[in-house]
Amino acid sequence: MASVLKLYSYWRSSASYRVRIALNLKGLIYEIVPVNIAPGASEQLTEPFRRHNPQRLVPILVDGERVFRQSLAIIEYLDEAYPEQPLLPSSARDRARARSIAQLIACEMQPMQNLRVLRYLEADLALDEGRRTEWVRHWIEEGFTALEDLLAGNPSTGDYCEGDSPTIADLCLVPQCYAARRYQVDLARYPTLAAIDARCRALPAFAAAAPEAQPDAPRA
Amino acid sequence: MASVLKLYSYWRSSASYRVRIALNLKGLIYEIVPVNIAPGASEQLTEPFRRHNPQRLVPILVDGERVFRQSLAIIEYLDEAYPEQPLLPSSARDRARARSIAQLIACEMQPMQNLRVLRYLEADLALDEGRRTEWVRHWIEEGFTALEDLLAGNPSTGDYCEGDSPTIADLCLVPQCYAARRYQVDLARYPTLAAIDARCRALPAFAAAAPEAQPDAPRA
Repeated sequence: MASVLKLYSYWRSSASYRVRIALNLKGLIYEIVPVNIAPGASEQLTEPFRRHNPQRLVPILVDGERVFRQSLAIIEYLDEAYPEQPLLPSSARDRARARSIAQLIACEMQPMQNLRVLRYLEADLALDEGRRTEWVRHWIEEGFTALEDLLAGNPSTGDYCEGDSPTIADLCLVPQCYAARRYQVDLARYPTLAAIDARCRALPAFAAAAPEAQPDAPRA
Repeated sequence: MASVLKLYSYWRSSASYRVRIALNLKGLIYEIVPVNIAPGASEQLTEPFRRHNPQRLVPILVDGERVFRQSLAIIEYLDEAYPEQPLLPSSARDRARARSIAQLIACEMQPMQNLRVLRYLEADLALDEGRRTEWVRHWIEEGFTALEDLLAGNPSTGDYCEGDSPTIADLCLVPQCYAARRYQVDLARYPTLAAIDARCRALPAFAAAAPEAQPDAPRA
């Protein structure tokens, strides 16, 4: 059967990375359509991509005739439409905890480091690279401090953020740790997070989703 | 039966506002515990509130012995634990659309205007009030332009963002419109959003959740 799933993705986008992990964990076959959102390229601003995506962001998942936006909504959709290898725990309470970890990252941390925000800091606020880096690090460190505090010693934390198999929480944590390393945040300060991140990255589904493994990543 | 639901809330917090609407739409009885997160008060930084909430944010929902964080995770939990008056549509596709609208607001717009970000802009970047207001308006206008484009003329848009009853999408839209009015964003530029916002605010569940109706709102 031909693949019906198509993912518009940018190799270094955290939100694209989350969805790639989800697709891989579920063992789904999908086609990646790389969209270059880096400064100077801005393919996401051009037609026909814009037709699918008035907000001009990646990722976008196309499943047959249907178009899905926003990484966490896409992950929830995949979990409902393709229930094998669930990405959410089975009880309402545990699902809430996994979602709250995902949302701490997706709503409090990642927005501060995305390209359009960094562009505003540079173009509109005239912040130099040093102050932009300070900004990104500030929000990563604040978020990870809170998250380490929430996870360390909590009996629901297992091999992964919630229990002993990867959930939507880990799908957000690993791309956020990738961004943290890019900005030289010292992950040793967050031992619980760093251990879960390492455990996840050892899994083939996470490894194949990594930015450097993408078709649109620059060749070394 | 005594109420078992307790909501730590701040009258003007968008995320608290979302959860208040959810509780009201479901007809649940709950106690509001006001937490003053405004500059100068910062009750959320003190014990015992901090014990529940290392990230020091509202809202927090306490249901019996259980503590829930992050507004969208709380809303999903309420919808699972108290299924009467569902806040998510019945098909996976429509749920994905409602969630993607909620997340566009919660991940792309609201983070830019929250208190700790505005504090950083003022204290660390020394931006004056005019430039802080410009910043907030920029992200609201960018987000609402995309959202208007997504909703207007889409056959899934009904009386509300997704179909003909309120969903998690409307629970995010109305507080975001409230913030937009506070920052003098002209909502007439987004006629579909403005009509849905007005329709929602006419419902008692939304009206009772409004910032000015809260016990901790300043008296006029």
